[in-house]
Amino acid sequence: VALCVGDDGGRILAARRRPTEPSGDPVRDVARLAEDARALVAEAGLTLDAIDGVGVSLPGPLDPKAQRVVNPPNLPGWRDVPVRERLGEAIGRPVFLENDANAAALAEWRFGAGRGFESLVYLTLSTGLGGGIVHGGRLLRGRTWSAGEVGHLPLEWNGEPCACGLRGCAEAYLGGRAWARRLAHVTPRDSRVAALAGGRDAATPVHVVAAAREGDAFALAELDRWNDHLARVIAILAMSLDPEAVILGTIAAAAGEELVLAPVRERVRAHVWPRVADGLAIVPAALGERQPYYAGLCAALAGFGVLDEA
Amino acid sequence: VALCVGDDGGRILAARRRPTEPSGDPVRDVARLAEDARALVAEAGLTLDAIDGVGVSLPGPLDPKAQRVVNPPNLPGWRDVPVRERLGEAIGRPVFLENDANAAALAEWRFGAGRGFESLVYLTLSTGLGGGIVHGGRLLRGRTWSAGEVGHLPLEWNGEPCACGLRGCAEAYLGGRAWARRLAHVTPRDSRVAALAGGRDAATPVHVVAAAREGDAFALAELDRWNDHLARVIAILAMSLDPEAVILGTIAAAAGEELVLAPVRERVRAHVWPRVADGLAIVPAALGERQPYYAGLCAALAGFGVLDEA
Repeated sequence: VALCVGDDGGRILAARRRPTEPSGDPVRDVARLAEDARALVAEAGLTLDAIDGVGVSLPGPLDPKAQRVVNPPNLPGWRDVPVRERLGEAIGRPVFLENDANAAALAEWRFGAGRGFESLVYLTLSTGLGGGIVHGGRLLRGRTWSAGEVGHLPLEWNGEPCACGLRGCAEAYLGGRAWARRLAHVTPRDSRVAALAGGRDAATPVHVVAAAREGDAFALAELDRWNDHLARVIAILAMSLDPEAVILGTIAAAAGEELVLAPVRERVRAHVWPRVADGLAIVPAALGERQPYYAGLCAALAGFGVLDEA
Repeated sequence: VALCVGDDGGRILAARRRPTEPSGDPVRDVARLAEDARALVAEAGLTLDAIDGVGVSLPGPLDPKAQRVVNPPNLPGWRDVPVRERLGEAIGRPVFLENDANAAALAEWRFGAGRGFESLVYLTLSTGLGGGIVHGGRLLRGRTWSAGEVGHLPLEWNGEPCACGLRGCAEAYLGGRAWARRLAHVTPRDSRVAALAGGRDAATPVHVVAAAREGDAFALAELDRWNDHLARVIAILAMSLDPEAVILGTIAAAAGEELVLAPVRERVRAHVWPRVADGLAIVPAALGERQPYYAGLCAALAGFGVLDEA
């Protein structure tokens, strides 16, 4: 859990981070969040009166009408929790929820790699594959707040099973957790990836990137396959949305220019119209470890309509 | 060429239609358009002073800055024609261009099957596969006016060659022209489709739909394959954009409920999240033969900002 006190100019006045440690009881979890928030406001030298509102960036799916959390897989016991209401009661200020990929897209747009663009797609590329779409200067939320869930567009029709229950989802090929599951099967036991991970069962994208940096052939082939799937998702989004920028999150940002960004750009260019490829920025996320703070801040700013340029 | 005189309430005061007959000389073609427009205004009992502006719906790609036509494949000699400027000089009223798929999306949204929806995707499904996206009550145009060109998103990575020069484009599987090319190869010479077409080289989607209505097995298998590809495009768009409606044009509207709409709905439902599928309207276009009139009208209304609700 990352908490901060900040303002609409992106100034962070106080920040802290702690393990999530879900208790299994969402009432207790929300009460603890409220305590942390009060303490952080005091640490920033402010009182709650000075706080306009609270933004919460959290895993979807969200219920758009009730502003509830709908059973996120990594928060046990959190089923249909009315976070907005509960946290609002505990803190006494307006609360705004945003799903984490959308909030991160807003954060990169306003304070990170997306500054100055009027339209962009942000891809989390972390353990899962979340996405957020900004178009015409505002977040594109969709009918059920599911717009930008490009991790679950069918990349391979009836392809690999995905954790979400569907088959062939982009996340089943690009999410870090799915990739680690694959690595546990396909990594040669005597490979550099297995050595770095201390056994192929523990191999993750981090080890693939590290081994690829050393020139390891298996790691390079795995990255090539991943880049290919990523280019495919970007090409689909480029021809559908024609955005100014595509911003790539964790794995791509960590792997960097030579291993991911340059080969992905080249592959996208070969699979979309030149007019769409020319001038399309494909860039790494810029906020790094600070992104969660800005994501929460942006959830609040979006709630107040401060980010809406439309 | 379909021309009409209409107003912002969708009332058509006069309309006419003629073969395009491009002369090879765009200056002559535009002059003829201007003459036709003047004659039609007179036929409606009006003078040019009463006309606020002229909307032109025409095949892309368009140059967004200069409002030029950039070499459309079915208008010989039309290379970088400054339609807005030329037509504006000839008629003396403001001219607004919109690519035909976008204009048709606006037409269905305001006057057809998309009435009342705040967000929708329209797919032309005619000789080619054009698309238009309305989101948040306005047309999503994209950086280079290429948003909605979903006919050229890579449905199969390195798949069938497409007329646009890329490979695996959705249009290469779903466009009527591409389908006819396929039919010339795969249609059994003694099949019902070949009989209806007078030879398999002349077979088109119209003959497939007609033979499928009679229960012909080959035609049903071809339609099934087409439906599968269509469901795939819709599933990609549903998980990316989460629209309220997907509106299906010519081939789907002509084939109707039993042969296309119901099986496509079922297949989309099996490949997207239930929350996204529930309540997503997948419906046929409603304007039929009148669509080009409304498309031109909407190009003008959009140009004046009348359609913008944002």
